[in-house]
Amino acid sequence: MNKKQNILIIGAGLCGSLLALRLGQRGYNVTVMEMRPDLRTTDISAGRSINLAFSNRGIKAMKLVGLEEKVKPLCIPMNGRMLHDIEGNTVLAPYSGRENEYINSISRGQLNALLLDEAEKHENVKIYFNRKCKSVDFEKTTALFKDYNSNKEFIEDADAIFATDGAGSAMRQSYYLGKKFLFSFSQDYLTHGYKELSILPSENGDYKTYKNALHIWGREAFMLIALPNLDGSFTVTLFLNFNEGEYNFNNLTTKERVIEFFEKYFKDALELMPNLVDDFFENPTSPLGTVKCSPWHYKGNTLLMGDAAHAIVPFYGQGMNASFEDVTEFDKVLDEKHKDWETVFKQYEESRKKDTDAIADLAIDNFHEMKGHVNHANFREKRSLEMAFEKTFPYEYSSKYSLVTFNENIGYREAMLRGRAQDKAILNMLADGDISDVNNLTNEALKNTLEKVKAATEAILEDDKIAGLK
Amino acid sequence: MNKKQNILIIGAGLCGSLLALRLGQRGYNVTVMEMRPDLRTTDISAGRSINLAFSNRGIKAMKLVGLEEKVKPLCIPMNGRMLHDIEGNTVLAPYSGRENEYINSISRGQLNALLLDEAEKHENVKIYFNRKCKSVDFEKTTALFKDYNSNKEFIEDADAIFATDGAGSAMRQSYYLGKKFLFSFSQDYLTHGYKELSILPSENGDYKTYKNALHIWGREAFMLIALPNLDGSFTVTLFLNFNEGEYNFNNLTTKERVIEFFEKYFKDALELMPNLVDDFFENPTSPLGTVKCSPWHYKGNTLLMGDAAHAIVPFYGQGMNASFEDVTEFDKVLDEKHKDWETVFKQYEESRKKDTDAIADLAIDNFHEMKGHVNHANFREKRSLEMAFEKTFPYEYSSKYSLVTFNENIGYREAMLRGRAQDKAILNMLADGDISDVNNLTNEALKNTLEKVKAATEAILEDDKIAGLK
Repeated sequence: MNKKQNILIIGAGLCGSLLALRLGQRGYNVTVMEMRPDLRTTDISAGRSINLAFSNRGIKAMKLVGLEEKVKPLCIPMNGRMLHDIEGNTVLAPYSGRENEYINSISRGQLNALLLDEAEKHENVKIYFNRKCKSVDFEKTTALFKDYNSNKEFIEDADAIFATDGAGSAMRQSYYLGKKFLFSFSQDYLTHGYKELSILPSENGDYKTYKNALHIWGREAFMLIALPNLDGSFTVTLFLNFNEGEYNFNNLTTKERVIEFFEKYFKDALELMPNLVDDFFENPTSPLGTVKCSPWHYKGNTLLMGDAAHAIVPFYGQGMNASFEDVTEFDKVLDEKHKDWETVFKQYEESRKKDTDAIADLAIDNFHEMKGHVNHANFREKRSLEMAFEKTFPYEYSSKYSLVTFNENIGYREAMLRGRAQDKAILNMLADGDISDVNNLTNEALKNTLEKVKAATEAILEDDKIAGLK
Repeated sequence: MNKKQNILIIGAGLCGSLLALRLGQRGYNVTVMEMRPDLRTTDISAGRSINLAFSNRGIKAMKLVGLEEKVKPLCIPMNGRMLHDIEGNTVLAPYSGRENEYINSISRGQLNALLLDEAEKHENVKIYFNRKCKSVDFEKTTALFKDYNSNKEFIEDADAIFATDGAGSAMRQSYYLGKKFLFSFSQDYLTHGYKELSILPSENGDYKTYKNALHIWGREAFMLIALPNLDGSFTVTLFLNFNEGEYNFNNLTTKERVIEFFEKYFKDALELMPNLVDDFFENPTSPLGTVKCSPWHYKGNTLLMGDAAHAIVPFYGQGMNASFEDVTEFDKVLDEKHKDWETVFKQYEESRKKDTDAIADLAIDNFHEMKGHVNHANFREKRSLEMAFEKTFPYEYSSKYSLVTFNENIGYREAMLRGRAQDKAILNMLADGDISDVNNLTNEALKNTLEKVKAATEAILEDDKIAGLK
């Protein structure tokens, strides 16, 4: 294909700006239209989470565009989950038994700014802000925008349009409302919403609680989490039911009730948050939804990527990583030198969709794990055993969490199938008493247990495969 | 609640007319608006399947409204699947080992006419035709209609609105586009579409092939089926990919290619269908989709029922049965005498949705079973064994098919979980050689095998339950 083709990218968020950079590097003429003002010159954090979990799949994409070193200073390693119980006791549950495996907290704004800066270094990449996409004519390969500066509408023409305009994608809505082809689509909301709060730095600028962890106050029906920022603060997120339960977003309407709720369930967090009430009533409550759809592309004209194609709930810390991996995977298809965009888009969706469907489902599983299971004895025993496996036999075992998070060369779907089978094997062996005293196993006993887990995992995968023929 | 309340039902198809009848019997003032002309006086079969599978869950609803005897003469029993292989050999695979368990072929039009006649016998039920719903204002509990007779629009007010307007429900679209509450919604299309064809009666009015079966020509990538009608004809349906494979709906564009396709794959059917080419090019090709959504109701104002709430693909023969069961289940909630519609609607959705989600998934499973697995050796062995269990130990075993189809007092979800576990148990026992020679087991060996299957099923359910805690 002719490199001088004109590419239009709708949305300059994380996925759109990375895509612009990569397509710019590959020599395409790239125009990016973003509805918000330039985040490098305006504070527009409201409504989107301030920091994010950044891990191997995201880092792989940074390597692709040569930004690995520039992104490092933005990262705060988080080695595990710091679990806070209702009495305020804490325990650090590592993410992996291997020392080099950890996730990072990163500022959405700083990372996005870096990607925009790098993309704009290419003279064949032009980024325009305050241009909101209203709809896409996917048959004509044109998009209608409103320019917020002039308040005028205009139509932009391109050889191919990429929509990276997020979970509420205008192009996806055009697919849905257009009814020109069979468009499978789902939006699924959780019963819970979220609200961002904060733990500010101490007076001398220090972190008020342990820096290198993702803090979790899991309370079964709801939970609070906190991720560190470079300035010594933590961004805290409350996940809570909208309508149900004794305390919910609908009935937390007074200062007194908010404090009562936090005193009862998050006493140690409350002590770090004198600013709680202000945050609570100033910040919006937002829904948590999963979006899946297919096809992502219309012929060779248009393609959905990132959240526009597959928005997920945040509980696996994989939203941004999955969107970045979209760009890595798309780039791989470009390397195959297909004859036209239609073949490229088709190939990309065929290899990619099974994996984004899987991470969507895994993210919902992890909601239940984080708010409840992390506190259950059998779950903790499973994790202890897995940490021992990973530490003692680092080349022989990876937990589901490790497969998803630290194994960027294994697809999400494979990670899900193997990871779930391992979990099932271990939980059932624990329930049946086939493994006990997991914290006091000799290396030989540990090795034997590992072999038993591996055999049981293979048997589960095989049984499922046979039953798939139903 | 006051019985004299005004109920508006949108749609007088199978679900809407049954609901009107039942609410009429219960004393409500019922107004029904249907967009089509009266099917009792106009032929409007186009676009919807002509005959349907009718079984225990549907019959239970007929009992509820006192129509069991009146519906019987409309039914043609189908005792099993008549499998046609590519050489034209046939084998009858029964639906159950118990003689009294069979499904029925019934005319959609005749059944709908019966329900309309019975509903209209109640002077508190009024049915209007040629009134198309355009949208519903679920906050005001009003609906906007277009009267096709006068070409004028009008607004209808009610105390509660029930939308039974099918898979393309206008009220569901109002929920989606209204964005007044978090509406989870999915539409999923299969890669396959369908087209209706026919086998006409012989010159003397007889059935040209065996009457009391559902005929299947399963060819892995596509399939043909046929259900009998009272007039000696069969309604035939071709399920075929839209775009892929050597033969698909997009490339079957000439008379010659259609005949070539049928000669190659459905030779014995083609011999019965001299009218094939005319049917093929006269009848539309339609998509196959699954719709799920939630919530079904908005406060106590509006409720989606039937296909409007949960459209499914036709492969389990449960679409109409599930919609009729909606009415049975809704009636049960009415018996609980809740204080207001909101409680009734909430209660109904809470108990019902898990089951309609399950039948949607089961129907997709059965697509793969019908077009392919019915021809596989291990699947056939499983079915032989299950038939032997049901015949020899009729009170001790029900296959997944029997649980779904003939056990109207077990919910679809329970039927799915138990049925899938049984299938998995048997298929794995067959694969492992734990059962062999299934057609020559002594009663004692059969009993032993049944006990093993039961134990393996329980173990599978238990293992899954433990792993659910992941």
